[in-house]
Amino acid sequence: MHFADALTERIKATSPVCVGLDPELRKLPEGIPKDAKGVLQFNTGIIDAVKGIASCVKPQLAFYEVLGWEGMKTFWETCAYAKEQGLIVIADGKRNDIGSTCEAYADAYLNADSPIDALTITPYLGSDGILPFVERCKKNEKGIYILVKTSNESSGEVQDLPTGDEVVHEHIAQLVEAIAVQDLGAKTKLSSIGAVVGATYPEEMKYLRTLMPHVPFLIPGYGAQGGTATDVKHGFLKDGTGAIVNSSRSIIFASGGKDWQKAAEKAAEKMAKELA
Amino acid sequence: MHFADALTERIKATSPVCVGLDPELRKLPEGIPKDAKGVLQFNTGIIDAVKGIASCVKPQLAFYEVLGWEGMKTFWETCAYAKEQGLIVIADGKRNDIGSTCEAYADAYLNADSPIDALTITPYLGSDGILPFVERCKKNEKGIYILVKTSNESSGEVQDLPTGDEVVHEHIAQLVEAIAVQDLGAKTKLSSIGAVVGATYPEEMKYLRTLMPHVPFLIPGYGAQGGTATDVKHGFLKDGTGAIVNSSRSIIFASGGKDWQKAAEKAAEKMAKELA
Repeated sequence: MHFADALTERIKATSPVCVGLDPELRKLPEGIPKDAKGVLQFNTGIIDAVKGIASCVKPQLAFYEVLGWEGMKTFWETCAYAKEQGLIVIADGKRNDIGSTCEAYADAYLNADSPIDALTITPYLGSDGILPFVERCKKNEKGIYILVKTSNESSGEVQDLPTGDEVVHEHIAQLVEAIAVQDLGAKTKLSSIGAVVGATYPEEMKYLRTLMPHVPFLIPGYGAQGGTATDVKHGFLKDGTGAIVNSSRSIIFASGGKDWQKAAEKAAEKMAKELA
Repeated sequence: MHFADALTERIKATSPVCVGLDPELRKLPEGIPKDAKGVLQFNTGIIDAVKGIASCVKPQLAFYEVLGWEGMKTFWETCAYAKEQGLIVIADGKRNDIGSTCEAYADAYLNADSPIDALTITPYLGSDGILPFVERCKKNEKGIYILVKTSNESSGEVQDLPTGDEVVHEHIAQLVEAIAVQDLGAKTKLSSIGAVVGATYPEEMKYLRTLMPHVPFLIPGYGAQGGTATDVKHGFLKDGTGAIVNSSRSIIFASGGKDWQKAAEKAAEKMAKELA
């Protein structure tokens, strides 16, 4: 099934909640080993806790790469387990490169047999750094989320630079929309080509939704970073689909004690209600 | 030793040649297994062939990630071997993220005990996505190369957007220089904070050298991508240091036959002479 159709179905069946799997070792609950195997144990526990509530999980590659190759083994095992449990799996790698290197990244994460449904990418290299991923999206029913306006404080240093009558991230939004309309879902009018738009800039999000009507949004910055349900509402389409909202720490580390799974479940439920 | 001092010493002792370790499986010479173990065998063979000629090797992470966790094991083994042989090791990952995720990437590649000397990063997120790396550079005598103007055809789509009296990549160059001057080498006036500037845009490179006088350049796009020795000359300082020039395919795949090591050595020697 086309990525946007699968995503929309899953959001309707569950919620727009995306749980960020950012397993910092020092924050793992007591009793979980502080290593790559412990991370796998923790991740499967979190996935079991949230799989009926969240539409997606988003493992953040940095937290696996920092554990060496053993961490990457855990990354792939986590993705496979989440996929088996029916979750949409988004690898947050913000990859970017050109030519055969870009092809290698696309093959690494968006191959037909990959448990990963979508990958985040960074647009600084222009379309050379985007189109090889788009090709895999079309061929293998996968998705990408292109960074447009990120949630962090300094995002404006590059993304808000004025250029002509607009700013850089608005210009990129138009490039993303132009690419997106070339691969729309069969059931939805949404594309497999998505955009990352931070919860912490609600006015920008409202405008970006008008610039990218066919683009699914991945919205970071909710919860610990300060974004609220009111801040993200303009990222959604009228039927409540078209966007997923990520929270990592507020869910997975809702408790550092023995009740960590129950606490994660409750935190995910609370967020799903806030977004409903 | 400060990264810029170590790099300068090594360039003086050898050459500005940086050999890109981009081991596409289908291009490996006959007789080498087409898997992660074969890649390690190939890489150590290339390192042995070029270690007296090149200052640096630059493994491109995508080609290891595409081989799963076994590929990442090979990546780390390759880096360790190259370091043991006296080469400067630059991990080409174009990583970018914020907050604790950025810290995790910095810890993954630029820890004190890492065999990696420098990492490439992408500036789209602004200083939040740069400063955690800079901190590791200062603390652990490591380096980074920030993408400023890349070698690919579509790099202008974002990097050449006009903003005020300049273009985006010139604006970023000034941010890079401002960060760079805060960590200069003891022996050289160069920083541990470098810039990626493509060989395929010689006029831009000439101007960028004036904007970033304290910044070591990593110059891709030589050879297979079309850049020549004349194109890159303005990236160097007057004493012939301050820049490294990368070539991947033209060196490592100089021959697909049994003479692949000898062919790589000759190709690296030829490039070193062109740049001398």
